[in-house]
Amino acid sequence: MTRPASTTANAILERCEELATYSSMDDGLIERVYLSPQHAAVNALAGRWMTEAGMTTWQDAAGNQCGRLEGATPGLPALLLGSHLDTVPSAGRYDGILGVLSAIAVVDRIRSSGRELPFALEVVAFGDEEGTRFGRALLGSRALAGTWLDEWWQLEDQDGISLRDAYVHFGLDPDAVGEAARSRGDFVGYLETHIEQGPYLEDENKALGVVSSIAGARRFLLTITGQAGHSGTPYERRRDALAGAAEAITTIERIARSAQLIATVGHLEVFPDAVNVIPGKVEFSLDLRGEYDTERDKVWLQIEEAILEICQRRRLRLTSIQTHSAKAAVCARPLRDAIADGIRSTGDSRPMSLFSRAGHDAMAIAEIADIGMIFVRCKGGVSHNPEEHVTEADVAKALDAFEATVLRLADGYEG
Amino acid sequence: MTRPASTTANAILERCEELATYSSMDDGLIERVYLSPQHAAVNALAGRWMTEAGMTTWQDAAGNQCGRLEGATPGLPALLLGSHLDTVPSAGRYDGILGVLSAIAVVDRIRSSGRELPFALEVVAFGDEEGTRFGRALLGSRALAGTWLDEWWQLEDQDGISLRDAYVHFGLDPDAVGEAARSRGDFVGYLETHIEQGPYLEDENKALGVVSSIAGARRFLLTITGQAGHSGTPYERRRDALAGAAEAITTIERIARSAQLIATVGHLEVFPDAVNVIPGKVEFSLDLRGEYDTERDKVWLQIEEAILEICQRRRLRLTSIQTHSAKAAVCARPLRDAIADGIRSTGDSRPMSLFSRAGHDAMAIAEIADIGMIFVRCKGGVSHNPEEHVTEADVAKALDAFEATVLRLADGYEG
Repeated sequence: MTRPASTTANAILERCEELATYSSMDDGLIERVYLSPQHAAVNALAGRWMTEAGMTTWQDAAGNQCGRLEGATPGLPALLLGSHLDTVPSAGRYDGILGVLSAIAVVDRIRSSGRELPFALEVVAFGDEEGTRFGRALLGSRALAGTWLDEWWQLEDQDGISLRDAYVHFGLDPDAVGEAARSRGDFVGYLETHIEQGPYLEDENKALGVVSSIAGARRFLLTITGQAGHSGTPYERRRDALAGAAEAITTIERIARSAQLIATVGHLEVFPDAVNVIPGKVEFSLDLRGEYDTERDKVWLQIEEAILEICQRRRLRLTSIQTHSAKAAVCARPLRDAIADGIRSTGDSRPMSLFSRAGHDAMAIAEIADIGMIFVRCKGGVSHNPEEHVTEADVAKALDAFEATVLRLADGYEG
Repeated sequence: MTRPASTTANAILERCEELATYSSMDDGLIERVYLSPQHAAVNALAGRWMTEAGMTTWQDAAGNQCGRLEGATPGLPALLLGSHLDTVPSAGRYDGILGVLSAIAVVDRIRSSGRELPFALEVVAFGDEEGTRFGRALLGSRALAGTWLDEWWQLEDQDGISLRDAYVHFGLDPDAVGEAARSRGDFVGYLETHIEQGPYLEDENKALGVVSSIAGARRFLLTITGQAGHSGTPYERRRDALAGAAEAITTIERIARSAQLIATVGHLEVFPDAVNVIPGKVEFSLDLRGEYDTERDKVWLQIEEAILEICQRRRLRLTSIQTHSAKAAVCARPLRDAIADGIRSTGDSRPMSLFSRAGHDAMAIAEIADIGMIFVRCKGGVSHNPEEHVTEADVAKALDAFEATVLRLADGYEG
């Protein structure tokens, strides 16, 4: 099999480094958000790499960068391969990016080999998975899945720019977002390669894993309101919103741990936020996830009740709004089997199966196509952090397994 | 006694409203910080009012607005009356402001009465008491007291503007700040009228009180460092800086309450502050105050030890730096006696004595002059809040008591 030089693990890692230079943060830190100048720049770069891999390319109506390689005959349904190019603040180099670059490399390898597939191959680099800029995740993949919500147009970034205005500024037509939507008949399935973002592969000494399902997260924005006041105010007169929030955060951790779920308070803001003023208001996020939706929903009610009790006791007021809710997404058995075969072809005779605690574009795509995911071991389970790390050897195995999975699906394809 | 129309409680409250319009915040909220355009504007306005009250006026080398009315002969030592015109964010209308306006009104009354005093009267409107902009309190009064520290020039505001650059931009010469310093021989004493910022007068149904001493606050900036990571990371792998900070804040409250001190965490910032990222770093302030310095210092050591234990258990790192430390300042007996007499002249035969839980400019001035303070009841003990409120009747009593105090000191003055 001919392998183009651009499809080695080393080339992928070099491209990860190159993408890392497109950032809105200084000091070598990475942040690349939806509809930013950096987004436009990496779309152009990924588009060039797609073209070099033999694909026809386009940017869709939601700012996702796409490419297509026809199968045995033009116009066949496609196997969609992809992930995202946007990041959180102070991000790592591989979350999302590795999946996009692997997908391009796999297409390049198959095209170079001269082999004709019974389906087309498409690659998509989603413009928004993390939700960093507008507080809503999966905007890119939900546009492609046709589950875009009109209410999102009013969302604002931290500078007060609405999603609608950001579309226009990026050169996109908000009223045309529906054109990004694809339908179920377009795809034979969706495959995504992604770093694990957890420690389980490393603990089992495995390079790769087959994802069984993706846990659904629910996210809330909680606001605790008390009364701002001078820092000399005695305790019996205080209605300290931060003291209440601190107790709430400790309680959230205790409840989630004992229920074996995961709860994260990642965003917190204090008002008025001055050294000598008792906080009058605190706003914080809660991200709650578990393998089973019913258990997760039950735990949210427990958490809400516990925080309400804290607020009542401290004469504070609680408001909570749900900002995101995703059902757990189950990976399709045929795709899981093909991935397991792909991993076996790299020398791992007993591929490990695990569920994803992190959300992925695949959750949105599950609405219109069967989904499958390959996980790649990452050092210490660390991600969303500049120290995110994968080894070249693992990336090489991931590429081989990814390619073998696609070929395995082609072999078993019945049209 | 002739009372100019501009010295009624009603006129004072109207001036409070007028000053409230000089703000860097929208929506009717008040914030006025050191060396801002609003600072320059209120200095000009206060200067005009001082001139109208018969004073010669100047802005000193630290941006404090000053005025002077000569006594029986020119060049006598002065009784200094004052407070500050800067505010916290989302401030009330009276904290500091009431003291400056009362001082101008008292000078106006005495001048109008034609009575010659055995000392001059000076009024000072300090440019920085709250420390909102540069994180260090009492910059204005410490310049006047000659206790300015050169290290402050490097302090930066939230936009990265150094104190030195802010001086230049305001039209002040940093190298001349020493010219703002006054010496002990300049003053026969310092009197400050201020809202209580606590509930004790209201609880005792008193309009006014005599301050016995001002509790010294110590302030710290604490940083807890863990490791940022994806919100899907399991608990055993987490080093969540915010979970640690939340436990620390709860612990601080418990320790301070049981020691009958007051601790406030008013500022808190999370990094990277994203919904789906475990916080890798949290920075927060601690303001600790009590009537006795030794007790307060002992409690700080207990708090530090408790937070270190939390950090160790959670695999977090703690750093703490002290950003402010003030000794408790005792009010001088002769001034306290004169104030008590002044309050008695308003019909309260048993003036209440209380210590101040809040810091005041008087603490800095205590380095070069005897100090005395009159407290005015404020509604619900609320301050540093738009709902800060005083009644016109109480302001009228405060003005009468303040004037009577000055005259009482003149009567007993031995030069």
